[in-house]
Formats: sequence, structure tokens, C-alpha cells
Amino acid sequence: MNNGIRVKEVKAHILEDNDVLAEQVRDGLRKKKTFLVNLMASPGAGKTTTLVRTINALKDRYKIGVMEADVDSQVDADTIAETGAKVIQLHTGGSCHMDAGMTQSGLDELGIDDLDIVFLENIGNLVCPAEFDVGAAKKVTILSVPEGDDKPLKYPLMFTVTDCLLINKIDTAVVFDFDMDALKASVDKLNPGLPIMPLSSLKGDGFDAWIDWLINEVEAWRA
Amino acid sequence: MNNGIRVKEVKAHILEDNDVLAEQVRDGLRKKKTFLVNLMASPGAGKTTTLVRTINALKDRYKIGVMEADVDSQVDADTIAETGAKVIQLHTGGSCHMDAGMTQSGLDELGIDDLDIVFLENIGNLVCPAEFDVGAAKKVTILSVPEGDDKPLKYPLMFTVTDCLLINKIDTAVVFDFDMDALKASVDKLNPGLPIMPLSSLKGDGFDAWIDWLINEVEAWRA
Repeated sequence: MNNGIRVKEVKAHILEDNDVLAEQVRDGLRKKKTFLVNLMASPGAGKTTTLVRTINALKDRYKIGVMEADVDSQVDADTIAETGAKVIQLHTGGSCHMDAGMTQSGLDELGIDDLDIVFLENIGNLVCPAEFDVGAAKKVTILSVPEGDDKPLKYPLMFTVTDCLLINKIDTAVVFDFDMDALKASVDKLNPGLPIMPLSSLKGDGFDAWIDWLINEVEAWRA
Repeated sequence: MNNGIRVKEVKAHILEDNDVLAEQVRDGLRKKKTFLVNLMASPGAGKTTTLVRTINALKDRYKIGVMEADVDSQVDADTIAETGAKVIQLHTGGSCHMDAGMTQSGLDELGIDDLDIVFLENIGNLVCPAEFDVGAAKKVTILSVPEGDDKPLKYPLMFTVTDCLLINKIDTAVVFDFDMDALKASVDKLNPGLPIMPLSSLKGDGFDAWIDWLINEVEAWRA
């Protein structure tokens, strides 16, 4: 099933300095006043559901594009396309993360001249994506309640490099033993002052704070 | 906090042929009649909880060792140590997976002469660990209900290479929209005949089938 969504094969670059290329990507985006979000999380944390609700909250205000990175398949791209956002599917060919070169390649294919915000849904993985600056304006990480409050201890880099932490699926807290205070304490050691926003992307609870944060960041970027 | 658990730093080998080394690891284990399980899953799918219940079910019958692989921390090793199993913590130094060389290094440090079963709890990641044969007798993958039934479509290699699939956290199915038939249908396309066992490692439901499968495999390996 393709549904007319373009699929782009992207390949990891052998690059001594991904950071240099990431700065070039970011400079190019700044010139075009396009705000790129690098959205990272474990498999099944709710990246796509969060994106759909976010797009629906912002689509009257901004022109939005989405790059869906996946090892394979395009199930998420099909879901996102239903929002009316401009969507491209990126296949990483087995690679466990996106890098700056792959991101530039995706942006070129997507075409960003008419876009205010682009979301990159990175590969579902708490390890590898944290290591690669893709050139985004902001990194946003989703941790879901069922994964447990100890994840910052086990995947510290992800929680250190991110700019905003969404705690998703709070509507399921009744069946999980998730200690929000313990989570906040361990995140605070890694990344003091990080915005932490509990929400339910499925039900909508807590979503306004995230949308407000995002609008503020987008406006600051485009000022 | 160390609690006397040994911590071993393991480094990814630059190795053209990980598969050759994996066969050497497997041969060495077969000679010692030690059954190595490569346990793989997303972050928070319940690897450690599953291990604790599995060890408690088998510890009167077998001598059990555990290698806890983590990018950092030893929260899981501390939990496992409470079962009385012989535990070693492996730190991968940022690497997103274990390979055969790292596994041999861990086995050497653990010491397996007195062990019937060794569990390797791999890094929480559905992408990279699937690519590396570590030399285990069997690969076991855990998918948890909150992650969703579409994961085989998105991370096909993991579901193709594994020998046994545990569907964990079935006690939370009431709050998640998880289609077991859809899951089974997509797994069947990738890996026909794969044993799929729904269970709750927290509550114990469905656990007997998994323990029976494991005992059969261990006995076959040691025969």
C-alpha cells in the first residue's frame, strides 16, 4: 500500500564530523524560517499519536511537514497523511538512527520552502538517535508511562541532550507503578531545568502545555 | 551503589564477520552444556521482570547466570542479584547492542563452568541487537502490549531472527488497543511457526508455557 506517499531511501554517511553538517542543516533551516523538531522515543512510546494530535492543534496556524523515518514500512506515514500534513517516508535501510546528512537529504526531498514546521519522527530507539545531532531547532523526547521511571538511569544520553521531555500515556498510570517524582529527580541530575510535560496524546490531557511550549519555540526561531 | 556486583566494560569489535565469532561462542557453550539466551526487547518491555520470574521458576532445577548489558547504570543487575543468580553487569560504553566478541568477554568474566543457563539481557532496542548473532543457543524477544501490535511491521528483522516471542503485560490489555490476531498475522509472514506466548511477567499469567518451552530447549541443548 503506498497511498501516494513518497518514499526516500536514505543512507548513513561515513562522516567524521556529523556536528559540522548538522550546523549547516540548522543554518539552512534558520534562513528559511523553518522549525525542525527531532522527535525521539522508544518503539511504541506514542510518537505518531503525539504527532497527529500536535498537527491537528497547529495546522490552522502553521504549514506543517513530517518526515517519517523507519527501518522499513510506512504505517506511520499513512496515519500522518490523514491529517493533511505534507509527509515523506524515509527508509534508513537498517540504520538505527537519522544523522544530519540523511536529514538534509530528506528535507531536500520533502521541499520546505512552503513549510513553517517540520517534524522528523526518528527511529524508535533510545540509544542511537541521541548520539546524532540532525540539525533540528529542538530535540523532543517522549517517554511513556509503561516503560517505567528508571529509563533516564539506563539511557542517560537521551535525557541529557533533549530540549523537552513529554511523559506520554499518563491515562494508563492507574495500571503502572510509575513514580513521577523519581523520574523528575533523575532527569534533573542529567539535564537541570528540562521542561517535563506529563500528557496523554490519545486522550488529550496535558496537551495544552506542550502546544504552548512548541508555539513559543517556533515563534522565537522565526523572529 | 555497587552491591558487590562486578562491572565489566565491553567494547564493540571491528569485525568483518561477527557470525564466525558467534559460532565459536556457541561451540564453546555447547561443549560446556551451558544454554545461553539472548533476550531482546524495547526499553521498558519488561526484560528484567521477566528474568526475575523466570529465574525464580527455574533456580531449583538449574544453576543460572545473568549478564546485564547496559549503556550505563546497574539498576537491573541489582534487581537480578536479589534472586540469588550469579550476575555480572556489562557496560557497552555507548554501543547500542551486544556482539559475539563482547558476549565472549562477558562469559569469560562471569565464569560459566558451574552454570546450566546464562541469560544475556541485551540493550533495550528493537533495531541493533537484531543484527548481531551473539552466539546464543536461542534468541528470545519480548514485545509488550503498550508498544502496540504494529511493531513487526516497523522492526521486521527483530521478529524474523528470533526463536521465541513473548507478548508481555497482557494484564494491561484492558487499557490498550492491542490486536493479538493482527500481531500474529504479521509475525507469521516474517517468521512462520514462531512460538508466540502472551503472558504477564508481573502477575504470572501465561508464564507456564514459556517456562515449559525454555526447559525443553535447555534439555535438548544439553542432551
